[in-house]
Amino acid sequence: MEILLERGEGRAAPVYRQIAEQIRHSIASGQLADGTRLPPIRGLAQRLGVHRDTVALAYEELVAAGLAEATVGRGTFVRQAALPAEATLPFEPPLSAPIERLLEFERARPRYGAASESVPLHALVPDPTLFPVDEFRRALGRTLTEGGAELLLYGGPQGHPGLRESLARRLRAQHGIEARPEELVICQGASQGISLALRLFAQPGDAVAVEEPTYQNVLGALLGLGLRPVPVPMEAEGPDLARLEQVLARPEVKLFYTIPTFHNPLGTVMPEVRRRELLRVAQRAGKPVVEDAFEADLRFDGHPVPPLAALDRVGLVVHLVSFSKSLFPGCRVGAIHARGRTIEGLLALRHSSDLGGAPLLQAALAAFVDAGGYDRHLTRLRRVLRGRCQAMLDALARELSGAATWTHPEGGYQVWVALKGAMDTRDLLADAMRGGVLFAPGDQFYHDGRPSSGLRLTFAQADEAGIRRGVAALGEIVRVRREEPKATHAESVHV
Amino acid sequence: MEILLERGEGRAAPVYRQIAEQIRHSIASGQLADGTRLPPIRGLAQRLGVHRDTVALAYEELVAAGLAEATVGRGTFVRQAALPAEATLPFEPPLSAPIERLLEFERARPRYGAASESVPLHALVPDPTLFPVDEFRRALGRTLTEGGAELLLYGGPQGHPGLRESLARRLRAQHGIEARPEELVICQGASQGISLALRLFAQPGDAVAVEEPTYQNVLGALLGLGLRPVPVPMEAEGPDLARLEQVLARPEVKLFYTIPTFHNPLGTVMPEVRRRELLRVAQRAGKPVVEDAFEADLRFDGHPVPPLAALDRVGLVVHLVSFSKSLFPGCRVGAIHARGRTIEGLLALRHSSDLGGAPLLQAALAAFVDAGGYDRHLTRLRRVLRGRCQAMLDALARELSGAATWTHPEGGYQVWVALKGAMDTRDLLADAMRGGVLFAPGDQFYHDGRPSSGLRLTFAQADEAGIRRGVAALGEIVRVRREEPKATHAESVHV
Repeated sequence: MEILLERGEGRAAPVYRQIAEQIRHSIASGQLADGTRLPPIRGLAQRLGVHRDTVALAYEELVAAGLAEATVGRGTFVRQAALPAEATLPFEPPLSAPIERLLEFERARPRYGAASESVPLHALVPDPTLFPVDEFRRALGRTLTEGGAELLLYGGPQGHPGLRESLARRLRAQHGIEARPEELVICQGASQGISLALRLFAQPGDAVAVEEPTYQNVLGALLGLGLRPVPVPMEAEGPDLARLEQVLARPEVKLFYTIPTFHNPLGTVMPEVRRRELLRVAQRAGKPVVEDAFEADLRFDGHPVPPLAALDRVGLVVHLVSFSKSLFPGCRVGAIHARGRTIEGLLALRHSSDLGGAPLLQAALAAFVDAGGYDRHLTRLRRVLRGRCQAMLDALARELSGAATWTHPEGGYQVWVALKGAMDTRDLLADAMRGGVLFAPGDQFYHDGRPSSGLRLTFAQADEAGIRRGVAALGEIVRVRREEPKATHAESVHV
Repeated sequence: MEILLERGEGRAAPVYRQIAEQIRHSIASGQLADGTRLPPIRGLAQRLGVHRDTVALAYEELVAAGLAEATVGRGTFVRQAALPAEATLPFEPPLSAPIERLLEFERARPRYGAASESVPLHALVPDPTLFPVDEFRRALGRTLTEGGAELLLYGGPQGHPGLRESLARRLRAQHGIEARPEELVICQGASQGISLALRLFAQPGDAVAVEEPTYQNVLGALLGLGLRPVPVPMEAEGPDLARLEQVLARPEVKLFYTIPTFHNPLGTVMPEVRRRELLRVAQRAGKPVVEDAFEADLRFDGHPVPPLAALDRVGLVVHLVSFSKSLFPGCRVGAIHARGRTIEGLLALRHSSDLGGAPLLQAALAAFVDAGGYDRHLTRLRRVLRGRCQAMLDALARELSGAATWTHPEGGYQVWVALKGAMDTRDLLADAMRGGVLFAPGDQFYHDGRPSSGLRLTFAQADEAGIRRGVAALGEIVRVRREEPKATHAESVHV
């Protein structure tokens, strides 16, 4: 029996459930016979690098499901006989083709079989130790006290007016976008914004131009919607515009998805001149541009570059905003800025998808922002990120000089490291886990999952000491690998 | 210039914005020339039946947008010249075909141009005066204090483990469904559950069997997803199963969506024997059944009938749960119960759609439920609903005997009234608004929007006195209309 664990943002299930599910599967398939003793909790926890309680919880779930029996002092034993009769002949309704493709895509994602002491340089999730929890809790309590039952009703597909006012003001003042509250639709983080924007302009069978590499979840969203990504290669200063012009000229390509500021996974910023040219290309093609500005508030260095939406004079740009990386993701609040019929379409689509979000969280967020809490948090966060970024760049210079090149972010959380030579960074992941560091291999940011010698590091969750330790571990692994290029390693723990 | 207002659940925008938008449109189209004086606030407010502040807010928005100018003591005047140059030639990216169809569907929805004193017998939104706001606020504050920053991180696509435990326990104990926490996916109300379930089994071009009449938002969700509804007529005891068998035999029909308990809009309950036969029909066809149990916790009379999911022995049923009608909709929490690969598919789909919901609200809801707050609320709510339902049935007997028949709900909020004769209830709506009552005309519950002599009344928001007043007003309108069958009435206010 082997157990593969996935952690962090977007894991399919909590770790204890992943363990329980995999053991359940082994029982159902007959791999673990009736009466077999499951591995002792302490030993399995050590091998998987998880806390003992996590394994204990997994075992408890199996016992609760009648699949195992715990005997005090002796251990936990498989009770195959307890499988209910119908479980042996379940009806499995066929899933739609896009969902099957999505499941295949999900299976190909790297499994971060994390020992808990590994440095999480793979995670693009903000550091919870920096969250202004108390201040937000007070805003939330006050908001519900003042707003009352009204905030527990449906809020409608457009979202809380106060939050839209507040966001429109910020977009105007901080980012030069002439946004009005009625041009904003609040959504469940930029990620729902992406799904809605894709559906707005493209229907199954259509294609969407994406930068390559790009945010891996956009590739998943496209698959799930029956859409096809058409890659536009990224250069140092942004997407190859000659290629973009060719791609957008195709009738089946309905829009361009781009991350011009603090690109994911590259961490780069598209210069203003390239942005203006990009808008001309899109305008000539008559195709909308979806601008993902998910880290736009996280500049800690260099000079601001206006977002595409601020340069757009004709209404080409749909602009996505998020609080998930700059504050915290748990409110699931982002926003879409668009104009005219695009807004009408978004409202109808949001209404038909889930009727809208939670007014209470939106109102509390507005109160928090309006009281200056968000700006105070950004000031602190940018300072921390500047330090962590510098620690990462210094460590990379120490550890990987000559073996790699990397980007120099002016904001956000991510650095792209391109290893020299024909290396597939997916192959390094198992070594890295053993060495105590996690990174995001580059292949997942390519539409065809091709092997990549690139990898994404983040300074989101690790502090400066952790970053130094993690990059040192990565440097060691790369050095070893460059010396013995043929070794293969399993990326899972065999129990 | 005519102004149409839409209110209540799922309105496209706040009333003030609807007013501002329609005036803006009239300015942009040249219908309101530069310098035209807008109607005085007090007069327009009276004609629209809204508060003066609402109109004032709309005018302020126009002034802020540079489209109007307010002169103290003289009024508000159109400033056509202020339209920005690019607004005259905006780029309007073409919307995808499903979105255009969805917009058309949305435009056909009734506009409840509500005078605020109208009795809202159209609304299927729970009464906010009954919400346990303080108890929930305390649960929320405690939960965030105890759970801390972890609750502000991503929670993953499956949703909070504690809430799934809690819901699984309730499904087992209250509804006889052998649910396990790992078989539940928390979603944004049952409405997101519907969208996810549809996408899970059907892809654009496919068809979905639905009861007719059925929940109007399902028809919208189908359109937005490029799916086609295939109606199965409702009888007194549920869908026509002979017809269902024919429909499910077609290869392009991928699933059946049903509301067996407290049907929307009919308010009826499918008897157990019909449920068992329905499952046999679905099993013979090998097609999954999506069971919407959105009001399952709201039985106030009669005997419980097991949900399809409790009778299902093979895994045919995907069961949708909601807190939106039985507690409040503002948390946007519902759940899907399913098994095997269906769960895997749901998790991948939810992840690719919006990464998952807000863990804080889910955890707070779990705490509220576990502390007994939900059950206490249900006890109170069911008592209130029993009284309101009786008031409505008594009033119907007084006012509409001989002119209509109606259903006798044992739970939930809705009663279906079928008027005698060839009456199109959509035509009655304008009279009803003038008469001080709102109802939901039947046409919107039919896939083709055909004229219907049925209408849906709810006892969700009105108290017993309001119900008596509203039904009396409806009775009067029906009597008048039956005497002069040829009158036509505009359903909007001409300004």
